[in-house]
Amino acid sequence: MSYLTDEKLAILGSAGAIGSNMVQTALTMGLTSNIAMLDPYDKGNEGAAEEIYHCSFPGANVTWTADPAEALSGASFVISSGGAPRKEGMTREDLLKGNAEIAAQLGKDIKSYCPAARFVVVIFNPADVTGLVTLVHSGLAPSRVATLAALDSTRLQTRLGQHFGVPQSEVTGCRTYGGHGEMMAVFASTASIGDRKLTDLIGTDELSDEDWEGIKAHTRQGGKRIIQLRGRSSFQSPSHHALLMTKAVIDGQGYPWPVGCYVDAEQAGFRHTLMAMETTVDGDGVHWTLPQGTEGEMADLRASYEHLVKLRDEVIEMGVIPALDGWSSVNPNL
Amino acid sequence: MSYLTDEKLAILGSAGAIGSNMVQTALTMGLTSNIAMLDPYDKGNEGAAEEIYHCSFPGANVTWTADPAEALSGASFVISSGGAPRKEGMTREDLLKGNAEIAAQLGKDIKSYCPAARFVVVIFNPADVTGLVTLVHSGLAPSRVATLAALDSTRLQTRLGQHFGVPQSEVTGCRTYGGHGEMMAVFASTASIGDRKLTDLIGTDELSDEDWEGIKAHTRQGGKRIIQLRGRSSFQSPSHHALLMTKAVIDGQGYPWPVGCYVDAEQAGFRHTLMAMETTVDGDGVHWTLPQGTEGEMADLRASYEHLVKLRDEVIEMGVIPALDGWSSVNPNL
Repeated sequence: MSYLTDEKLAILGSAGAIGSNMVQTALTMGLTSNIAMLDPYDKGNEGAAEEIYHCSFPGANVTWTADPAEALSGASFVISSGGAPRKEGMTREDLLKGNAEIAAQLGKDIKSYCPAARFVVVIFNPADVTGLVTLVHSGLAPSRVATLAALDSTRLQTRLGQHFGVPQSEVTGCRTYGGHGEMMAVFASTASIGDRKLTDLIGTDELSDEDWEGIKAHTRQGGKRIIQLRGRSSFQSPSHHALLMTKAVIDGQGYPWPVGCYVDAEQAGFRHTLMAMETTVDGDGVHWTLPQGTEGEMADLRASYEHLVKLRDEVIEMGVIPALDGWSSVNPNL
Repeated sequence: MSYLTDEKLAILGSAGAIGSNMVQTALTMGLTSNIAMLDPYDKGNEGAAEEIYHCSFPGANVTWTADPAEALSGASFVISSGGAPRKEGMTREDLLKGNAEIAAQLGKDIKSYCPAARFVVVIFNPADVTGLVTLVHSGLAPSRVATLAALDSTRLQTRLGQHFGVPQSEVTGCRTYGGHGEMMAVFASTASIGDRKLTDLIGTDELSDEDWEGIKAHTRQGGKRIIQLRGRSSFQSPSHHALLMTKAVIDGQGYPWPVGCYVDAEQAGFRHTLMAMETTVDGDGVHWTLPQGTEGEMADLRASYEHLVKLRDEVIEMGVIPALDGWSSVNPNL
């Protein structure tokens, strides 16, 4: 069995459903042979590690610990699912305070133990905020910290495929941008069903305006729906995508979905936030460009951004991160 | 993304922890693009399928259903984790009756809907019995039906690596044979730590006889220990190995661990049972040879076999499978 690298990948929250799935999936993908499992819950972490040992991945070096210093020291890649999970009925925003504080500690730990980390993926909610807080405290360059934002787009793709009765892979260009919460901006103008533009189909017999509104609502509620169906929040798809994003940094083969990343573009009017944009991922991390959409879509993106600014400012008020003019003293890359 | 085949893989119990992990892992391995998810629990099965859709595996064709005919029709590969799970405090044998009846129905469904199946892996406990019952009712050739038996061997490997403080991969030749229950035969004579034979180390300062007895007990209790640590029975390692076994049938690259398979060898004195032997897996399925061990190890294997014969005879008494002389009327390959 060969691995793409033997650089260390630290998986935080590895006793949990997402984290333990990531360890297995990273090894199955052949991403790296070298994985540190970090979780404060020793017993569950040992159990999760034992399961991986019983898989007997050839040449794998998998360790488990509750000590951030041990797990993070020398890590090139960090993926954290180590927040509190969302429960049925909670919005992502309900989780704000507790998880923002966890993210602050994560950023500080990265600064202390792996300041040369090549890529950090934050996948605990509200990810736009936890990713930003992690970035501020980590001291890393903005391209090195990303959040998982793809699932809204893949949920849109799934639902459109189901509506039109075509294989999901034939639905292309599905994009949601901005926040990963319910204020996400769902774009129609980028998507196609086979060779037909989605915008040419909306408002026809094939996809009434009402249907389209339903699909958008379904996309926004995609995470809640998994909880309703499975009795637990999604864990397989976040694991898969966080690893695909990381794989793109390792192998340079790209990642085809939007990524949440730090955006500070005065001209575009998006300042000091972390949000899903049109992105590419390469060996240097994540890079964004401004989405192209209709006037209405761009207004939705603006509204989503403004919602994120509010959340960011709440976290500043809580004292979890400094006020904007203090960021550069904590992270000179900002 | 490329897949090794587009032959259909039916995963039974796909709403459960093992089954849903298998769907994701099979796609991540690139095993096949074509997966049918079967589970009587529609809601959970839909949720598990939606998670897979949200991964957006390129070109994947994944369906979900509660209808065995739909899932199994045309399947080349069948993996079933669709038994009742073992709870803390239960032995595998406690599960006997309920799961034997599920296995009988599985065999009948295979006969009805996919009589040309190339490989069936049964991974619900007690697997030696459920695998046998499935085989009898399926009508398939014995090489086409296998059970997961590797985890005892990989648990032994894990524990020996931990004891000697060496990477797990340096511990080779770990083998348990016979039953997958607590009566398994744990072999020492096949194993090495690096280039040193395990049998040369037992009874030395490096590994006292007491330590070795402890390691064997630990191996036998490996499944229970996962339940104690994680609060649930193992699901990642069974998923991984069931798929690796199936992969060996698809790609002919072999599978390095013991497999549970049908054994009927008059000369060796192992008749009409399903048990873990030394095995190879290729495009025709699983093939066994007699393990080579010390006199004591072979006596352990014999005792394990005799325990399995008792379990088999209990299932015959229950009427779940016919008496031995009636097997060929149900399955002409036996």
